[in-house]
Amino acid sequence: MPPTDKTIATTEFYVRYAETDAMGIVHHASYIVWLEEARSHFARTLGGDYADFERAGYGLSVIEVHIQYRAPSRYGDRVAVHCWVEDVKSRAMSFGYEVTLVPGGALCASATTRHMCITRDGKPAKIPDEWRRRWGLDAAD
Amino acid sequence: MPPTDKTIATTEFYVRYAETDAMGIVHHASYIVWLEEARSHFARTLGGDYADFERAGYGLSVIEVHIQYRAPSRYGDRVAVHCWVEDVKSRAMSFGYEVTLVPGGALCASATTRHMCITRDGKPAKIPDEWRRRWGLDAAD
Amino acid sequence: MPPTDKTIATTEFYVRYAETDAMGIVHHASYIVWLEEARSHFARTLGGDYADFERAGYGLSVIEVHIQYRAPSRYGDRVAVHCWVEDVKSRAMSFGYEVTLVPGGALCASATTRHMCITRDGKPAKIPDEWRRRWGLDAAD
Amino acid sequence: MPPTDKTIATTEFYVRYAETDAMGIVHHASYIVWLEEARSHFARTLGGDYADFERAGYGLSVIEVHIQYRAPSRYGDRVAVHCWVEDVKSRAMSFGYEVTLVPGGALCASATTRHMCITRDGKPAKIPDEWRRRWGLDAAD
Repeated sequence: MPPTDKTIATTEFYVRYAETDAMGIVHHASYIVWLEEARSHFARTLGGDYADFERAGYGLSVIEVHIQYRAPSRYGDRVAVHCWVEDVKSRAMSFGYEVTLVPGGALCASATTRHMCITRDGKPAKIPDEWRRRWGLDAAD
Repeated sequence: MPPTDKTIATTEFYVRYAETDAMGIVHHASYIVWLEEARSHFARTLGGDYADFERAGYGLSVIEVHIQYRAPSRYGDRVAVHCWVEDVKSRAMSFGYEVTLVPGGALCASATTRHMCITRDGKPAKIPDEWRRRWGLDAAD
Repeated sequence: MPPTDKTIATTEFYVRYAETDAMGIVHHASYIVWLEEARSHFARTLGGDYADFERAGYGLSVIEVHIQYRAPSRYGDRVAVHCWVEDVKSRAMSFGYEVTLVPGGALCASATTRHMCITRDGKPAKIPDEWRRRWGLDAAD
Repeated sequence: MPPTDKTIATTEFYVRYAETDAMGIVHHASYIVWLEEARSHFARTLGGDYADFERAGYGLSVIEVHIQYRAPSRYGDRVAVHCWVEDVKSRAMSFGYEVTLVPGGALCASATTRHMCITRDGKPAKIPDEWRRRWGLDAAD
């Protein structure tokens, strides 16, 4: 279950046919792309687009992905990805996720990703205060 | 411009970061996936899910894709894919598409795809009457 | 059949599981990625890596893809992509392709792609003489 | 470093342009596809193609992926994926991986994946003895 004491951003979409594989289910790498889209949605929802973060000269480099697949999803399914901030440090942060079916809420996958804040030339950097505020990161500390 | 005398189904979504490439724009193969999702949306909108079409034992095999790229789209952009039935034959059909930016409507790509109706074992088959009716294909003849 | 009067670069690889879809065959968008890898291989084979072309400040933007799918390929198959220069203009060029099974040579797809030479800021540019020479483009005129 | 007491299968290939993203580096989800291709290569190398495993009515469902990204790879790079069996149980097994640059051997990513043996209808099953032998799994116990 997503945590009850954190801001959860949920994005919903239909499984795309291209995301399936010859087992007849969604390919496991497609979920990684969904997690990323959920982060984008989280940022948009909180009022600080990741595209603007990049235009400001920063990036959140993915340094770790840990995902557990619980049940398959298929073409024709509508899925929800629930995303929240799991942990924040000066230069790094992590997100938690659950991927569920809509309707019903059956759990397909749960995951965490860790990220390093970097400048455009790839150097580690502090997450700028303005963006900590926009994304509600201080509250998550 | 999409045709004015045909049913247009339009699906909208944000560009996903994974869909971009090192040129900083959306990779050209990502559009092919968008066209497919637009076909799915077309079928859902008209009341005949493609997932149900498959469960009924049929498929629409892609036999040709022709796409012209007019202007790049980028992460952070919201895009619309407009999709309509271009032509219908007994065992084959083709779709037309335009990919545009939202808002503004700038044209990113225009495309057509051709499809052969097949059974589960890959044999060509007539598009079943029930599905021609659901998807409004007779009107498109 | 690939043309007999042109330089053909052929790259071979195994189908990746992720490239398949729920129809049990390779998804049609995967071929678009294969064509691109065939272009990369063409450039490497002729002694002018596309990565160096980009480092020199240029790109070959994809402006058109036309592909016809003839027969499916599947996970477990080894495929060959044959690539040649179809046409060269001052600022544009096109490639031709055939995707075949190995062994046997059954034709899976045939395609052409058109490209515009651009500078790093996206402006159309003449294909530099050095690169025309490296890629044998003058002979293709 | 890959373990010295286990069979390591190493597959090498060039980064595909489509695998990069707007950060100018390989997108993190592309590595997940590379791990899978490394498993395919492992199976081919040991004489038991995964495609044959599927034709025999089995699958190795991915139930967990854990990957740590150490340094970026880019278009133009040649990468090696080293793959070995980390652990084997009656119905499950896990693989270990390292993704490195060629030449030089700089470490880009290290990962483990866990898999459940399933039948065609998705039910958990013992890994068949014949396949344990082909893949050298008993030695890995």
